[in-house]
Amino acid sequence: MKRIGILTSGGDCAGLNAVIRAITLRAIQGYGWEVYGIHQGTHGLMRRPVDASKLDLSFCTGSLFREGGTVLGTTNKGDPFAFPLPDGTLKDLSENVIEGYRLLKLDALVGIGGDGSQDILRRLAQQGGLNLVAIPKTIDDDLSHTEHSIGFMTAVDVATEALDRLQPTAASHDRVMILEVMGRDAGHIALVSGIAGGADIILIPEIPYQMKNIADKIQSLREAGRNFALMVVSEAVGTETGEKAKIMDLEGRSRYGGISHHIANRITELTGAETRFTVLGHVQRGGQPSAQDRVLASVFGTHAVDLIAQGKFDRMVAWQNRHVVDVSIQQAIAGYQAVDIHGSLVKTARGLGICLGDENF
Amino acid sequence: MKRIGILTSGGDCAGLNAVIRAITLRAIQGYGWEVYGIHQGTHGLMRRPVDASKLDLSFCTGSLFREGGTVLGTTNKGDPFAFPLPDGTLKDLSENVIEGYRLLKLDALVGIGGDGSQDILRRLAQQGGLNLVAIPKTIDDDLSHTEHSIGFMTAVDVATEALDRLQPTAASHDRVMILEVMGRDAGHIALVSGIAGGADIILIPEIPYQMKNIADKIQSLREAGRNFALMVVSEAVGTETGEKAKIMDLEGRSRYGGISHHIANRITELTGAETRFTVLGHVQRGGQPSAQDRVLASVFGTHAVDLIAQGKFDRMVAWQNRHVVDVSIQQAIAGYQAVDIHGSLVKTARGLGICLGDENF
Amino acid sequence: MKRIGILTSGGDCAGLNAVIRAITLRAIQGYGWEVYGIHQGTHGLMRRPVDASKLDLSFCTGSLFREGGTVLGTTNKGDPFAFPLPDGTLKDLSENVIEGYRLLKLDALVGIGGDGSQDILRRLAQQGGLNLVAIPKTIDDDLSHTEHSIGFMTAVDVATEALDRLQPTAASHDRVMILEVMGRDAGHIALVSGIAGGADIILIPEIPYQMKNIADKIQSLREAGRNFALMVVSEAVGTETGEKAKIMDLEGRSRYGGISHHIANRITELTGAETRFTVLGHVQRGGQPSAQDRVLASVFGTHAVDLIAQGKFDRMVAWQNRHVVDVSIQQAIAGYQAVDIHGSLVKTARGLGICLGDENF
Amino acid sequence: MKRIGILTSGGDCAGLNAVIRAITLRAIQGYGWEVYGIHQGTHGLMRRPVDASKLDLSFCTGSLFREGGTVLGTTNKGDPFAFPLPDGTLKDLSENVIEGYRLLKLDALVGIGGDGSQDILRRLAQQGGLNLVAIPKTIDDDLSHTEHSIGFMTAVDVATEALDRLQPTAASHDRVMILEVMGRDAGHIALVSGIAGGADIILIPEIPYQMKNIADKIQSLREAGRNFALMVVSEAVGTETGEKAKIMDLEGRSRYGGISHHIANRITELTGAETRFTVLGHVQRGGQPSAQDRVLASVFGTHAVDLIAQGKFDRMVAWQNRHVVDVSIQQAIAGYQAVDIHGSLVKTARGLGICLGDENF
Repeated sequence: MKRIGILTSGGDCAGLNAVIRAITLRAIQGYGWEVYGIHQGTHGLMRRPVDASKLDLSFCTGSLFREGGTVLGTTNKGDPFAFPLPDGTLKDLSENVIEGYRLLKLDALVGIGGDGSQDILRRLAQQGGLNLVAIPKTIDDDLSHTEHSIGFMTAVDVATEALDRLQPTAASHDRVMILEVMGRDAGHIALVSGIAGGADIILIPEIPYQMKNIADKIQSLREAGRNFALMVVSEAVGTETGEKAKIMDLEGRSRYGGISHHIANRITELTGAETRFTVLGHVQRGGQPSAQDRVLASVFGTHAVDLIAQGKFDRMVAWQNRHVVDVSIQQAIAGYQAVDIHGSLVKTARGLGICLGDENF
Repeated sequence: MKRIGILTSGGDCAGLNAVIRAITLRAIQGYGWEVYGIHQGTHGLMRRPVDASKLDLSFCTGSLFREGGTVLGTTNKGDPFAFPLPDGTLKDLSENVIEGYRLLKLDALVGIGGDGSQDILRRLAQQGGLNLVAIPKTIDDDLSHTEHSIGFMTAVDVATEALDRLQPTAASHDRVMILEVMGRDAGHIALVSGIAGGADIILIPEIPYQMKNIADKIQSLREAGRNFALMVVSEAVGTETGEKAKIMDLEGRSRYGGISHHIANRITELTGAETRFTVLGHVQRGGQPSAQDRVLASVFGTHAVDLIAQGKFDRMVAWQNRHVVDVSIQQAIAGYQAVDIHGSLVKTARGLGICLGDENF
Repeated sequence: MKRIGILTSGGDCAGLNAVIRAITLRAIQGYGWEVYGIHQGTHGLMRRPVDASKLDLSFCTGSLFREGGTVLGTTNKGDPFAFPLPDGTLKDLSENVIEGYRLLKLDALVGIGGDGSQDILRRLAQQGGLNLVAIPKTIDDDLSHTEHSIGFMTAVDVATEALDRLQPTAASHDRVMILEVMGRDAGHIALVSGIAGGADIILIPEIPYQMKNIADKIQSLREAGRNFALMVVSEAVGTETGEKAKIMDLEGRSRYGGISHHIANRITELTGAETRFTVLGHVQRGGQPSAQDRVLASVFGTHAVDLIAQGKFDRMVAWQNRHVVDVSIQQAIAGYQAVDIHGSLVKTARGLGICLGDENF
Repeated sequence: MKRIGILTSGGDCAGLNAVIRAITLRAIQGYGWEVYGIHQGTHGLMRRPVDASKLDLSFCTGSLFREGGTVLGTTNKGDPFAFPLPDGTLKDLSENVIEGYRLLKLDALVGIGGDGSQDILRRLAQQGGLNLVAIPKTIDDDLSHTEHSIGFMTAVDVATEALDRLQPTAASHDRVMILEVMGRDAGHIALVSGIAGGADIILIPEIPYQMKNIADKIQSLREAGRNFALMVVSEAVGTETGEKAKIMDLEGRSRYGGISHHIANRITELTGAETRFTVLGHVQRGGQPSAQDRVLASVFGTHAVDLIAQGKFDRMVAWQNRHVVDVSIQQAIAGYQAVDIHGSLVKTARGLGICLGDENF
């Protein structure tokens, strides 16, 4: 009988509880193992006593798996290799984490996280001999080798729903409506929700834009009799001229809608259009996982346990063309996956006449 | 055979198309009248030719009535009694509106609007002899003599859904999450969605708050083992010290989340809690009307036409205790209805232990 | 310090967990009492040991209150005054229930149920000196003296959503689509969702119908260019000729869609239209409570506890025109509230041109 | 300048209007072509004058693309190669359809349909020299060479939502709840929604079942302390003993829930459990397309037009691993794609401990 641990790391997203449930069900029912849920990511392994609780089947019944967030908690308080102490200095606490794994007497650890978390976990695994299997989750969908990571499709649903609600009010008031969405350095949420939500203009970090092109697009819509425009802006888009400092936070995200505010003002200057912006914010994270995210979570969770049973470690589970597969974690995080600007979705957006900011309309 | 006009005025909300449909169905099928939809509120009556279109039954089939916004368009560009001209001066264009009514050969006008719009329409009616019936719509729900106005309940649904999504991410990250909602000078959306969404703290303009009480509430939640807090802030709430200028726009609403930003910073100062805020914005307006709003729209629309048939003018339709009634417009707009701070809902909020900012916890 | 019990009785509905939470919060935080959740209605009080568990504040955090169903379980296995034993005989077990109340050392009991449950609880209270406060819940909305009971508005939302989905497929295939909804002897769900969902025909038990009128309505829609029709049928509607035995279960509800099946066949005979029916079933009960139902649950739960604190028993809480009130239970259950066939909603339905089966179109 | 036609054929589903919009946008904006929407599938081409209307960009604005159904109408009245006449005889009307294509002066036709429709269109194209491009749509998702067809993912969302609502009422009443879903001969909807919705038992046509295994599963859940069970049944599942005639319609689908009714009764016989069933029905078809279905529709629609521009005919567009591709129609319809009983999803279901009817628990 094995003992395995589960931790969720990095920003939360929809589907984490569904993946915790799938791991627990598979490990207990399929193999008769013990499962420990580690609280607040690697922090739970740093604390003494180790902050973790045993998960049983009662956890797996009821509504929990269809709730957003993570019952285990997560953390973005710090990299264990350079952990910020209260006095402001950084300290390497990686050995504490590894020791926590040993104190819990774990045979393997399932780490659910994005590329940053997986890189940290992989280095911990190498340093300390941990048996690690990784599950990709990120609303940004910027992990390669898998069609989607957990949480992305629900975030797209939430952003699309917002566009569905902004369109009628834009049309009623003859307005340009801007929706700012998350995604960090990748424009996936903006691009996919923009196509789904009928946006006229989509700005993503992968494609530099000119304000003139946006103004021309709005003008051409007017000439075709349209009285409104719908626009999606990804949070990491900067200003046309590259000015970013004032409107971005340390991680390069739009600060309190700074970029949308800026673009809205510029549109009004160039076109005279009445413009409003909405920053969608954290509702993209915490919603109930869509059916697709719950299925992906179920596939990933059960396969991760099967990998442990087979003694296959240092692997990330992935979804490719209707099949679950697994790839080396290093390979997975090496291939950062921004929007493919020559791919099918960008081509579709252009095919629908959506302005991506780089073309003259 | 009569000819009636319909116009929607002021900020859009969910249910306007449903009320336009109800009026059209009742007038054509019930009485054989002609119905004209006037575009962009009183603006349509100012323009020459008058900007309006005849509505027929084909308008009433299909999905339109369950869409948000208004197919007639609306306007908040100006009061016809003091209309802003391009040169910046104000001009009284009320006679033009009245002339538009006559040019359309209308026998009566159904005005769908909030208290500001109804006041303007009532004065136009008095001045020009227009036969006016009013239908209350406002997401702010601040019209008296009716249990609810069209649009309010859908706005509450949207705000509640946002709280449902913010709670799991707040709990996953040990955060205080603030949701800023609309409502102008009335805290109805904040209070009702806050109760429905399980908020711990609700700030409304009707109840002055102390930051210390909020900090104490968060502290008491912590002591009871809770790692997060959920808070709703109404857009017209000012700072504790009454400072409003920088964070409010001309109409007294929070400017780009200024008040939420301020409160978030103060909470972090006082409690050390990690805090995030989301400004819900225009998605509160444009969503599909809830079942309740569609029923209210149907009741109001059909009753308004019946009032015209009976020659009863200068009346606003209203809903009271499962019955449609009508009251004089003057009476309706005289009784501005903020949150009753001694009413059942405030009492319920206090009964649930929700901090309203004025009590020590 | 008091000890109070809570039980949920009769068919489940949305909002029960929200009311249990509100009672618990108010009793513990407001008064410092102990709260016991009794399992499976009066059954929990019959069992020895009494089947109940102490509720604390941890119950009140998180997502539970926005889940459907009831964590306490419910029962429709039998009336304690005539309880069906395994051998098929009926036995009066009312004294056992009363004894259970005493064994739990309760000072008061909050009974959440419909008219049947409240009648039983009231008789138990009279017989055994129980201190009872009642909270109205029923998707059928047939309790008088309150504008709505808990669960009704969510059931309406679910039924309306189904109509929204059936309309496009009806139109795509030139079909008559029938939706059969719950409601027992009262047509409230059918009438309200039918108005909200844009139904052309609504059949409710309160209004006898003629198939000929329905066929005429479909014919008149065709003549007006409409290729489809949308119809809502309440489960307790019988056949035109009064034949009910084969299509109804013991409680007078349509058996496996028998009535819809019958009406669909008759429509095809009379009009040649392709017809389909859907029986909405239990999804009307178990959904997440709408914002309105959660607010109603919060109001009712806190007020019920306040009544206990004031020593006011044998009362049912109720909602009237934006205020919580309370009425005697006997008074409440005496006034069964079917659809008022002269009321505002029936008038609205007729005003929209909806066929209610009794008028020639 | 080319003239192209669009038709939707077979059962309707979510996303058809989105694909019509995408084709129209791409053809008019990208190539300057004329687009004709043909009404009611091949029927529109049989009628004289041909029943079609010119589509322009005004069609592409607003909410239409996010509505369910198809504005063009569809038909399942008959195969043009053997069309049922009013007198009951079958007649080959294929030449009429081909003539309709010529009368409309079409350069190419985009046919949106499932495998049956595509087979008919392909044969018409071969016989008459039509330039055909096909777009796969079917809620059954049984077309090969594409990860998904339009409409499937929305149907899964609707079925999952129903399970989310049935679970709480099952738990509140200690019941086995059965949900019967569509899918014809393929169990895709049942399998995917069952995993997403947390089902305990899923029956699909691809896997023969034994009632004893189902009863054993329910028994094992009880022994583990679970008081309810959630079950999904695909409409084409027969009885354990192969008896199908009475409960299936001509196309092998469960007739009015016959199979669910049968299974519910057998479960009660074998386990004593109280059992209820719900037949989800047509709400699986008509709902608003999910974000994923709208994106797929946009990708398919624009790519289909690009294929016409390149003179590539007799191709079906498809989605594989984040890329749009195209395959020969013959190839596509040859590879009927039922559930892969050795694939990742079946393995996941078993990994979660879901009973598929063929294993002893």
